[in-house]
Amino acid sequence: MYSFSEITDPVAEKVKETWIKYLSMEYRFAARMRNAPESFLKKLFAVSSDPSIISFAGGLPDSNLIDVAGIRDSAACVLEEEGREALQYTTTEGYLPLREFIAERYRNRLGIAASAENIRIVNGSQQCLDIIGKIFIEKNDRIGIERPGYLGAIEAFSLYEPVIKSVDMNESGPDMEGFEKLVTDDKIKFFYGIPNFQNPTGRSYSYDARKQIGGIVGGSGSLFYEDDAFGELAFDLKPRMPVNKFAPENVITSGSFSKTVAPGMRIGWIMAPPEIISVFDTAKQAADLHSNFLCQKILDQYLRNNDYDAHLKRVVSVYHDNCMLMQDLLDDMTVAGITHTSPEGGMFMTAGLPKGLSSMKLFEDGIKNGVAVLPGIPFYAGDGGDDMIRLNFSNTSEENIKEGMNRLSEIL
Amino acid sequence: MYSFSEITDPVAEKVKETWIKYLSMEYRFAARMRNAPESFLKKLFAVSSDPSIISFAGGLPDSNLIDVAGIRDSAACVLEEEGREALQYTTTEGYLPLREFIAERYRNRLGIAASAENIRIVNGSQQCLDIIGKIFIEKNDRIGIERPGYLGAIEAFSLYEPVIKSVDMNESGPDMEGFEKLVTDDKIKFFYGIPNFQNPTGRSYSYDARKQIGGIVGGSGSLFYEDDAFGELAFDLKPRMPVNKFAPENVITSGSFSKTVAPGMRIGWIMAPPEIISVFDTAKQAADLHSNFLCQKILDQYLRNNDYDAHLKRVVSVYHDNCMLMQDLLDDMTVAGITHTSPEGGMFMTAGLPKGLSSMKLFEDGIKNGVAVLPGIPFYAGDGGDDMIRLNFSNTSEENIKEGMNRLSEIL
Repeated sequence: MYSFSEITDPVAEKVKETWIKYLSMEYRFAARMRNAPESFLKKLFAVSSDPSIISFAGGLPDSNLIDVAGIRDSAACVLEEEGREALQYTTTEGYLPLREFIAERYRNRLGIAASAENIRIVNGSQQCLDIIGKIFIEKNDRIGIERPGYLGAIEAFSLYEPVIKSVDMNESGPDMEGFEKLVTDDKIKFFYGIPNFQNPTGRSYSYDARKQIGGIVGGSGSLFYEDDAFGELAFDLKPRMPVNKFAPENVITSGSFSKTVAPGMRIGWIMAPPEIISVFDTAKQAADLHSNFLCQKILDQYLRNNDYDAHLKRVVSVYHDNCMLMQDLLDDMTVAGITHTSPEGGMFMTAGLPKGLSSMKLFEDGIKNGVAVLPGIPFYAGDGGDDMIRLNFSNTSEENIKEGMNRLSEIL
Repeated sequence: MYSFSEITDPVAEKVKETWIKYLSMEYRFAARMRNAPESFLKKLFAVSSDPSIISFAGGLPDSNLIDVAGIRDSAACVLEEEGREALQYTTTEGYLPLREFIAERYRNRLGIAASAENIRIVNGSQQCLDIIGKIFIEKNDRIGIERPGYLGAIEAFSLYEPVIKSVDMNESGPDMEGFEKLVTDDKIKFFYGIPNFQNPTGRSYSYDARKQIGGIVGGSGSLFYEDDAFGELAFDLKPRMPVNKFAPENVITSGSFSKTVAPGMRIGWIMAPPEIISVFDTAKQAADLHSNFLCQKILDQYLRNNDYDAHLKRVVSVYHDNCMLMQDLLDDMTVAGITHTSPEGGMFMTAGLPKGLSSMKLFEDGIKNGVAVLPGIPFYAGDGGDDMIRLNFSNTSEENIKEGMNRLSEIL
C-alpha cells in the first residue's frame, strides 16, 4: 500500500525486517496477511513515548478528562454487589441493561427506533470493522470507503481481501456521483463512512448528503456502514441526523464509549437489522465468546449513576477550544501555503501541505524538531495522501498546541 | 455440520428460522458464514437460565471459587493509583508486566525459554483461535484437530473455510499414525490439540505422545497449536511437559486466566515464535486494537498481591472431588452400559452411551427430567458424536451431582 523506503528510524526498520522475513515463507501464512498494510501505529507509539516530542499524530482522547473517580466508584459498587456474576462468563450479545441504555439514548437523542435486540456489545468499535468484514467480504468483493478514510477500517477490511473503491470526501460528504456509481455499477457490499466529524478530516456530511445516501442504498443490495464514533463530540452538542434514519434496513451503525468515557475498557457497539445481528453473533462468538463482562457492568453502572451529558459537555468544551486554537495558528501559517479543514466536532482535522512538500518528509523533519504529525498516506486505500497530514487536537493542551504549532511553523 | 431436525424447542426453532432467512440472500453475506456450524451455546444458555434444571452441559468454572474480594482489592488499587493510565488506550501487545508474569511462570513451572517478547494478551484464548485461523488458513487449506475436539475451535476455524481433518483422540493422545499422515501427506497448516485434560474428553497426551508430536512437527512446514487452557487444573498440581518443549519453532501455545482466575475479564494469551507474533500483532490490531487494559492491570495486580498457587490448590481440590464423585456415580450406572473417561484434571469428562441411545435424544429427555448434558455432535468436525455426551464437573456441587446423576439414571 505504501512504502517504508523513506523511513530510517530503528522501529520501522525492525518492522520492515520482520515483514520481509515472513514473506520468505518460513511460516506458511495465509495470503491475506501479505495484503495487509503495515501499521503506522507501532511507529506512532514509539514516537509518543518520547516526552520531548509534542504529538498531534495520535488519536487518543484526553486522559485528564476521563472521570476516573466516577469509574472507580462504579467499579467498587459492581464488585461489591455483583462481583461473582460480573467475573463469570456471560452471553455473546452483551449486557442487556447496557444495550438498553444505548437503545434508549438512540431513541431519545436521534429518534431512531432502536431496541436492545438490534444492539450488540463489542471490544471497541474497531471490532465491528473486523466482524462486518468477516461476515460480508469475500475475496475480490467490492466495498467503498471515503478518500481519505479511517486507516483502522482500511487495515481491518484489507485482511478479507476486498477490492476497495474510494470516493472523495468533500466538504459536505462523499462525492455523490461517485458514491451512486459504487452502488449501481460496482454493486459494493457496503460503503464505510463516518458522517460526523470524520477521521481524518473532521468533516461532516450535510443533511442533504445523508438523505441522498439513504435514498441510494435503500432497497439496493448495498449497505451503508455508519461509523459514529464521534457523534457525541459535536461542539454545539446538537445531534446530527443519522443516515440510519433514511434507510434503516440498509444501514449498519457502530458506536463507542472510547471517545466519551474511557478507551481502556474497550466497549463499543453495533446496531443493525436483526438478520445481520444474527449472523454477527455467530462471528462474534467465534471471535472471543463475548466482550469483557466486568467492564460492561462498570460502564453501565457509571452511565446510570452519573450525569453523562454534563460529562460530555466538559469534554467537548475542551476539544472545541483546542480545535479553534489550532485552526487560528494554522491560519497564521497561510504564508507557507498550508490549508486546513474546519471541524464542528470530534478529535481531528487535516491540513493540506504546500505544493512540493511531502507529508513523510514533514513527519521526519517534525520528529527532529520535536513535533509529530501523521502523514496522510495510510488514510488512502490506493495512492495519495502525501500532500496532507492529520492533526489531533483532543490529547493535548493549549500550551502544547502553541509550542507544537510553533515548531511546525519553523519547519515550514 | 449437524441438523436441527430433531430439535423442537422454541429457542432452536428461532435460530433455525433466522438461518433459513439469511440463506435467502436478502443480505449478501460472505459464503464463509454459510459454512459456520450453528452454535449449541445459545441453546445452552437458554437451558442454563432455568433454575430447575441441573446442568452438566455448560463449560463454566465455579463462580463460588472466584476470588471476588481479592479482585475487588486489586481493582480499587489500580483505579486509585493508575486509573488514568488504565482507562486510556494502550499498545496492541498487551500490558508488559502481565506478559512478564506469564513468561516467568512458564520458565519456572515448565522450564520453557519464554519471554514477554513472545507473549501477547488476547480476549480469552478463544481470540487466539480466530486470529490464528485468520493468519494461517486460506480457503481449502487443510488443518487437523482431535476427534472429538473443542467445539469453539471448530467454530472459529470453520469461518476461514479450511478442510478440517480429524484424528481419533485416544487415551494417550491423538492416533499417532493418523497424526503423522496429516503432517507428511496432507501437509496441514497446523494441528489444533489440547494435551492437558482435553475438552471434551478430559484425556491427556502421554509424555511419549508429546515427544513424538514434537518430533513429527519439528522442522516440518506444519505447526502444532497447543491449547493449554486447563494445564493449571491438574488434580495432582504437577505440571505436564508441553509439546512446545520438543519443537518450540513449530508450536503455538495459548493459555487463559478464565479457568483459573475469572472468565469475565476475558484475559488469555498466545506464545509463539517471533515471526508468528509479528503477523499476529497485525491481525490483533485490526481486530480490536488491544485487549481491555483496565482488566489487564487489575489481573496483574491480583496475581502479584495474592498467592496464585494457593488459590489454584483450592480450585483444583473442589474440581477433583466433583470429578471423582461423578465418576463413581457413572460407574454405578454400568448396568445401563454407560462408559466414561477418567480425567486427571480440568473441567470435563465424556461418557459413552449404550448402543442405540442417541445423545440428542438423551439431551431432550434430560431437559424434560431436569438434567442437561451436552451431546457429543458439535465436537466432531465431520460426522459422529451422537454416541457420547460431555459432562462438566466444575460448575456444580456435590448435591447437584448426586441429584443430577440420579435424574440421568432414571432416563437410562
